[in-house]
Amino acid sequence: MTISTLQDLFLDELSDIYDAERQLSEALPKMAENAQNKKLAEGFRKHLKETERQIKRIEKVLEICDFDLPDEECEAMKGLIKEGEQMIADIEDHNVLDAALITAAQKVEHYEIASYGSLLALGKCLDIDPKALDMLKESMEEEKRTDETLTMLAEEEGINERALQQAA
Amino acid sequence: MTISTLQDLFLDELSDIYDAERQLSEALPKMAENAQNKKLAEGFRKHLKETERQIKRIEKVLEICDFDLPDEECEAMKGLIKEGEQMIADIEDHNVLDAALITAAQKVEHYEIASYGSLLALGKCLDIDPKALDMLKESMEEEKRTDETLTMLAEEEGINERALQQAA
Repeated sequence: MTISTLQDLFLDELSDIYDAERQLSEALPKMAENAQNKKLAEGFRKHLKETERQIKRIEKVLEICDFDLPDEECEAMKGLIKEGEQMIADIEDHNVLDAALITAAQKVEHYEIASYGSLLALGKCLDIDPKALDMLKESMEEEKRTDETLTMLAEEEGINERALQQAA
Repeated sequence: MTISTLQDLFLDELSDIYDAERQLSEALPKMAENAQNKKLAEGFRKHLKETERQIKRIEKVLEICDFDLPDEECEAMKGLIKEGEQMIADIEDHNVLDAALITAAQKVEHYEIASYGSLLALGKCLDIDPKALDMLKESMEEEKRTDETLTMLAEEEGINERALQQAA
Protein backbone atom coordinates (compact mmCIF):
# COMPACT_ATOMS: atom_id res chain seq x y z
CA MET A 1 0.00 0.00 0.00
CA THR A 2 1.05 3.64 -0.40
CA ILE A 3 1.87 5.25 2.93
CA SER A 4 1.20 8.99 2.70
CA THR A 5 -0.13 9.78 6.16
CA LEU A 6 0.28 8.65 9.77
CA GLN A 7 -3.07 6.85 9.50
CA ASP A 8 -1.76 4.90 6.49
CA LEU A 9 1.24 3.89 8.61
CA PHE A 10 -1.07 2.79 11.45
CA LEU A 11 -3.16 0.68 9.04
CA ASP A 12 -0.04 -0.82 7.47
CA GLU A 13 1.21 -1.81 10.94
CA LEU A 14 -2.19 -3.15 11.95
CA SER A 15 -2.40 -5.20 8.78
CA ASP A 16 1.11 -6.55 9.43
CA ILE A 17 0.31 -7.72 12.96
CA TYR A 18 -3.08 -9.10 11.82
CA ASP A 19 -1.29 -11.34 9.33
CA ALA A 20 1.44 -12.12 11.87
CA GLU A 21 -1.12 -13.29 14.46
CA ARG A 22 -2.88 -15.46 11.88
CA GLN A 23 0.41 -17.05 10.81
CA LEU A 24 1.23 -17.68 14.47
CA SER A 25 -2.15 -19.28 15.16
CA GLU A 26 -1.29 -21.82 12.47
CA ALA A 27 2.21 -22.46 13.83
CA LEU A 28 1.43 -22.79 17.55
CA PRO A 29 -0.29 -26.22 17.39
CA LYS A 30 2.89 -27.68 15.83
CA MET A 31 5.02 -26.03 18.51
CA ALA A 32 2.76 -27.46 21.25
CA GLU A 33 2.89 -30.94 19.65
CA ASN A 34 6.68 -30.88 19.54
CA ALA A 35 7.24 -29.62 23.07
CA GLN A 36 8.31 -32.40 25.41
CA ASN A 37 7.87 -30.45 28.65
CA LYS A 38 4.19 -30.51 29.63
CA LYS A 39 4.14 -26.96 30.97
CA LEU A 40 5.73 -25.67 27.76
CA ALA A 41 3.20 -27.54 25.60
CA GLU A 42 0.41 -26.17 27.81
CA GLY A 43 1.91 -22.67 27.50
CA PHE A 44 1.84 -22.89 23.70
CA ARG A 45 -1.76 -24.12 23.75
CA LYS A 46 -2.78 -21.32 26.13
CA HIS A 47 -1.07 -18.80 23.86
CA LEU A 48 -2.93 -20.20 20.85
CA LYS A 49 -6.21 -19.30 22.54
CA GLU A 50 -4.84 -15.84 23.38
CA THR A 51 -3.69 -15.41 19.78
CA GLU A 52 -7.17 -16.28 18.53
CA ARG A 53 -8.62 -13.65 20.86
CA GLN A 54 -6.02 -11.13 19.67
CA ILE A 55 -7.07 -11.71 16.06
CA LYS A 56 -10.70 -11.01 17.04
CA ARG A 57 -9.56 -7.90 18.93
CA ILE A 58 -7.93 -6.51 15.77
CA GLU A 59 -11.17 -7.15 13.86
CA LYS A 60 -13.05 -5.31 16.62
CA VAL A 61 -10.59 -2.37 16.40
CA LEU A 62 -11.32 -2.16 12.65
CA GLU A 63 -15.05 -2.18 13.36
CA ILE A 64 -14.87 0.48 16.09
CA CYS A 65 -12.66 2.79 14.03
CA ASP A 66 -14.39 1.99 10.74
CA PHE A 67 -11.08 1.17 9.08
CA ASP A 68 -10.46 -1.04 6.06
CA LEU A 69 -7.31 -3.09 6.24
CA PRO A 70 -4.90 -3.32 3.31
CA ASP A 71 -3.88 -6.87 2.47
CA GLU A 72 -0.34 -7.38 3.77
CA GLU A 73 1.87 -10.34 4.38
CA CYS A 74 4.13 -10.15 7.41
CA GLU A 75 7.52 -11.23 6.03
CA ALA A 76 9.22 -10.98 9.42
CA MET A 77 6.80 -13.41 11.09
CA LYS A 78 7.19 -15.74 8.12
CA GLY A 79 10.95 -15.80 8.79
CA LEU A 80 10.54 -16.22 12.53
CA ILE A 81 8.15 -19.15 12.12
CA LYS A 82 10.43 -20.72 9.52
CA GLU A 83 13.26 -20.61 12.06
CA GLY A 84 11.08 -22.46 14.57
CA GLU A 85 10.06 -25.07 11.99
CA GLN A 86 13.69 -25.58 11.03
CA MET A 87 14.50 -26.31 14.67
CA ILE A 88 11.69 -28.85 14.90
CA ALA A 89 13.00 -30.54 11.75
CA ASP A 90 16.67 -30.49 12.75
CA ILE A 91 16.93 -31.00 16.52
CA GLU A 92 16.61 -34.62 17.55
CA ASP A 93 17.08 -34.31 21.30
CA HIS A 94 13.68 -33.36 22.74
CA ASN A 95 15.12 -31.52 25.72
CA VAL A 96 17.37 -29.37 23.53
CA LEU A 97 14.40 -28.80 21.22
CA ASP A 98 12.34 -27.49 24.16
CA ALA A 99 15.09 -24.94 24.93
CA ALA A 100 15.26 -23.99 21.24
CA LEU A 101 11.48 -23.61 20.93
CA ILE A 102 11.60 -21.15 23.82
CA THR A 103 14.26 -19.00 22.10
CA ALA A 104 12.22 -19.02 18.86
CA ALA A 105 8.98 -18.18 20.67
CA GLN A 106 10.55 -15.30 22.58
CA LYS A 107 11.65 -13.70 19.32
CA VAL A 108 8.07 -13.97 18.10
CA GLU A 109 6.76 -12.42 21.32
CA HIS A 110 9.22 -9.53 21.08
CA TYR A 111 8.20 -8.88 17.49
CA GLU A 112 4.61 -8.60 18.64
CA ILE A 113 5.48 -6.44 21.68
CA ALA A 114 7.25 -3.98 19.34
CA SER A 115 4.32 -4.01 16.89
CA TYR A 116 1.62 -3.39 19.48
CA GLY A 117 3.84 -0.76 21.12
CA SER A 118 4.11 1.16 17.82
CA LEU A 119 0.39 0.77 17.17
CA LEU A 120 -0.41 2.20 20.59
CA ALA A 121 1.90 5.20 20.08
CA LEU A 122 0.51 5.86 16.58
CA GLY A 123 -3.10 5.24 17.67
CA LYS A 124 -2.79 7.69 20.59
CA CYS A 125 -1.39 10.32 18.27
CA LEU A 126 -4.21 9.69 15.76
CA ASP A 127 -6.71 10.01 18.62
CA ILE A 128 -8.46 6.75 17.78
CA ASP A 129 -11.30 5.50 20.00
CA PRO A 130 -10.02 4.73 23.55
CA LYS A 131 -11.82 1.35 23.43
CA ALA A 132 -9.67 0.39 20.43
CA LEU A 133 -6.52 1.60 22.20
CA ASP A 134 -7.42 -0.47 25.29
CA MET A 135 -7.72 -3.57 23.12
CA LEU A 136 -4.31 -3.06 21.54
CA LYS A 137 -2.87 -2.49 25.01
CA GLU A 138 -4.49 -5.68 26.33
CA SER A 139 -2.86 -7.70 23.53
CA MET A 140 0.52 -6.08 24.18
CA GLU A 141 0.31 -6.94 27.88
CA GLU A 142 -0.55 -10.56 27.02
CA GLU A 143 2.53 -10.79 24.77
CA LYS A 144 4.70 -9.41 27.59
CA ARG A 145 3.29 -11.96 30.04
CA THR A 146 3.87 -14.78 27.54
CA ASP A 147 7.49 -13.66 27.15
CA GLU A 148 7.91 -13.69 30.96
CA THR A 149 6.33 -17.14 31.20
CA LEU A 150 8.79 -18.45 28.60
CA THR A 151 11.74 -17.03 30.57
CA MET A 152 10.35 -18.65 33.71
CA LEU A 153 10.00 -22.02 31.95
CA ALA A 154 13.58 -21.85 30.61
CA GLU A 155 15.10 -20.84 33.93
CA GLU A 156 13.06 -21.65 37.08
CA GLU A 157 11.17 -24.54 35.54
CA GLY A 158 14.56 -25.93 34.45
CA ILE A 159 14.02 -26.59 30.75
CA ASN A 160 17.50 -25.27 29.87
CA GLU A 161 19.04 -27.24 32.74
CA ARG A 162 17.36 -30.44 31.56
CA ALA A 163 18.70 -29.88 28.03
CA LEU A 164 22.17 -29.51 29.51
CA GLN A 165 21.94 -32.70 31.60
CA GLN A 166 20.46 -34.75 28.79
CA ALA A 167 23.28 -34.00 26.43
CA ALA A 168 26.03 -34.38 29.05
CA MET B 1 24.67 -26.53 11.73
CA THR B 2 23.51 -29.60 13.61
CA ILE B 3 22.18 -28.72 17.05
CA SER B 4 22.67 -31.68 19.37
CA THR B 5 23.49 -29.98 22.67
CA LEU B 6 22.66 -26.82 24.59
CA GLN B 7 26.09 -25.47 23.67
CA ASP B 8 25.29 -25.98 19.98
CA LEU B 9 22.09 -23.98 20.52
CA PHE B 10 24.05 -21.21 22.25
CA LEU B 11 26.53 -21.05 19.36
CA ASP B 12 23.75 -21.08 16.80
CA GLU B 13 22.09 -18.14 18.56
CA LEU B 14 25.39 -16.31 18.94
CA SER B 15 26.13 -16.78 15.26
CA ASP B 16 22.63 -15.52 14.40
CA ILE B 17 23.01 -12.29 16.40
CA TYR B 18 26.58 -11.81 15.10
CA ASP B 19 25.27 -11.81 11.56
CA ALA B 20 22.25 -9.70 12.59
CA GLU B 21 24.50 -7.02 14.11
CA ARG B 22 26.69 -6.96 11.02
CA GLN B 23 23.67 -6.59 8.74
CA LEU B 24 22.39 -3.79 10.97
CA SER B 25 25.72 -1.95 10.92
CA GLU B 26 25.37 -1.80 7.13
CA ALA B 27 21.75 -0.61 7.26
CA LEU B 28 22.04 2.09 9.95
CA PRO B 29 23.93 4.68 7.84
CA LYS B 30 21.07 4.62 5.30
CA MET B 31 18.51 4.99 8.09
CA ALA B 32 20.44 7.97 9.51
CA GLU B 33 20.70 9.58 6.07
CA ASN B 34 16.97 9.29 5.50
CA ALA B 35 15.87 10.56 8.89
CA GLN B 36 14.63 14.14 8.69
CA ASN B 37 14.55 14.76 12.45
CA LYS B 38 18.05 15.62 13.65
CA LYS B 39 17.74 13.80 16.96
CA LEU B 40 16.53 10.67 15.16
CA ALA B 41 19.44 10.82 12.68
CA GLU B 42 21.82 11.35 15.59
CA GLY B 43 20.22 8.41 17.42
CA PHE B 44 20.81 6.11 14.44
CA ARG B 45 24.43 7.26 14.17
CA LYS B 46 24.97 6.71 17.90
CA HIS B 47 23.46 3.26 17.60
CA LEU B 48 25.78 2.47 14.68
CA LYS B 49 28.75 3.04 16.99
CA GLU B 50 27.12 0.87 19.67
CA THR B 51 26.43 -1.84 17.08
CA GLU B 52 30.09 -1.81 16.05
CA ARG B 53 31.08 -2.22 19.71
CA GLN B 54 28.53 -5.04 20.09
CA ILE B 55 30.09 -6.88 17.14
CA LYS B 56 33.51 -6.60 18.81
CA ARG B 57 31.98 -7.81 22.08
CA ILE B 58 30.72 -10.98 20.39
CA GLU B 59 34.22 -11.57 18.98
CA LYS B 60 35.61 -11.10 22.49
CA VAL B 61 33.07 -13.60 23.90
CA LEU B 62 34.27 -16.14 21.32
CA GLU B 63 37.88 -15.50 22.34
CA ILE B 64 37.19 -15.75 26.08
CA CYS B 65 35.16 -18.95 25.74
CA ASP B 66 37.36 -20.39 22.99
CA PHE B 67 34.36 -20.99 20.77
CA ASP B 68 34.27 -21.31 16.98
CA LEU B 69 31.24 -19.79 15.37
CA PRO B 70 29.25 -21.63 12.69
CA ASP B 71 28.54 -19.49 9.64
CA GLU B 72 24.88 -18.45 9.81
CA GLU B 73 22.76 -15.92 8.05
CA CYS B 74 20.09 -14.23 10.14
CA GLU B 75 16.99 -14.47 7.96
CA ALA B 76 14.83 -12.57 10.43
CA MET B 77 17.13 -9.51 10.44
CA LYS B 78 17.25 -9.67 6.65
CA GLY B 79 13.44 -9.38 6.60
CA LEU B 80 13.37 -6.61 9.20
CA ILE B 81 15.93 -4.53 7.32
CA LYS B 82 14.09 -5.14 4.04
CA GLU B 83 10.96 -3.71 5.65
CA GLY B 84 12.88 -0.56 6.63
CA GLU B 85 14.36 -0.20 3.13
CA GLN B 86 10.92 -0.61 1.61
CA MET B 87 9.67 2.26 3.75
CA ILE B 88 12.55 4.48 2.65
CA ALA B 89 11.75 3.67 -0.98
CA ASP B 90 7.99 4.10 -0.69
CA ILE B 91 7.24 6.91 1.77
CA GLU B 92 7.60 10.35 0.25
CA ASP B 93 6.61 12.51 3.20
CA HIS B 94 9.73 12.88 5.35
CA ASN B 95 7.81 13.34 8.60
CA VAL B 96 5.77 10.17 8.02
CA LEU B 97 9.00 8.38 7.07
CA ASP B 98 10.57 9.39 10.41
CA ALA B 99 7.63 7.82 12.25
CA ALA B 100 7.92 4.70 10.06
CA LEU B 101 11.68 4.39 10.60
CA ILE B 102 11.04 4.37 14.35
CA THR B 103 8.53 1.50 14.08
CA ALA B 104 10.98 -0.47 11.91
CA ALA B 105 13.90 0.21 14.26
CA GLN B 106 11.94 -0.82 17.34
CA LYS B 107 11.22 -4.20 15.77
CA VAL B 108 14.95 -4.60 15.17
CA GLU B 109 15.74 -3.65 18.77
CA HIS B 110 13.18 -6.10 20.13
CA TYR B 111 14.64 -8.88 17.99
CA GLU B 112 18.03 -8.17 19.52
CA ILE B 113 16.65 -7.90 23.08
CA ALA B 114 15.09 -11.35 22.67
CA SER B 115 18.33 -12.77 21.21
CA TYR B 116 20.63 -11.44 23.92
CA GLY B 117 18.06 -12.50 26.54
CA SER B 118 18.14 -16.09 25.27
CA LEU B 119 21.94 -16.03 25.03
CA LEU B 120 22.19 -14.87 28.64
CA ALA B 121 19.83 -17.60 29.88
CA LEU B 122 21.64 -20.30 27.87
CA GLY B 123 25.10 -18.95 28.77
CA LYS B 124 24.29 -18.93 32.49
CA CYS B 125 23.08 -22.51 32.28
CA LEU B 126 26.23 -23.50 30.36
CA ASP B 127 28.30 -21.78 33.05
CA ILE B 128 30.32 -19.76 30.54
CA ASP B 129 32.90 -17.23 31.78
CA PRO B 130 31.19 -14.41 33.79
CA LYS B 131 33.16 -11.84 31.76
CA ALA B 132 31.48 -13.14 28.59
CA LEU B 133 28.06 -13.08 30.27
CA ASP B 134 28.64 -9.47 31.37
CA MET B 135 29.38 -8.47 27.78
CA LEU B 136 26.20 -10.06 26.47
CA LYS B 137 24.28 -8.32 29.25
CA GLU B 138 25.85 -4.96 28.40
CA SER B 139 24.73 -5.32 24.77
CA MET B 140 21.21 -6.30 25.86
CA GLU B 141 20.96 -3.23 28.11
CA GLU B 142 22.12 -1.01 25.24
CA GLU B 143 19.39 -2.44 22.99
CA LYS B 144 16.77 -1.78 25.69
CA ARG B 145 17.98 1.82 26.08
CA THR B 146 17.88 2.33 22.30
CA ASP B 147 14.30 1.04 22.24
CA GLU B 148 13.36 3.49 25.03
CA THR B 149 15.06 6.38 23.20
CA LEU B 150 13.05 5.56 20.05
CA THR B 151 9.79 5.61 22.06
CA MET B 152 10.82 8.95 23.56
CA LEU B 153 11.57 10.39 20.10
CA ALA B 154 8.20 9.22 18.72
CA GLU B 155 6.19 10.52 21.66
CA GLU B 156 7.81 13.28 23.79
CA GLU B 157 10.05 14.58 21.00
CA GLY B 158 6.91 14.76 18.84
CA ILE B 159 7.97 12.88 15.71
CA ASN B 160 4.58 11.14 15.43
CA GLU B 161 2.76 14.43 16.11
CA ARG B 162 4.74 16.19 13.36
CA ALA B 163 3.88 13.40 10.91
CA LEU B 164 0.21 13.91 11.80
CA GLN B 165 0.31 17.70 11.34
CA GLN B 166 2.25 17.51 8.09
CA ALA B 167 -0.26 15.25 6.46
CA ALA B 168 -3.33 17.12 7.81
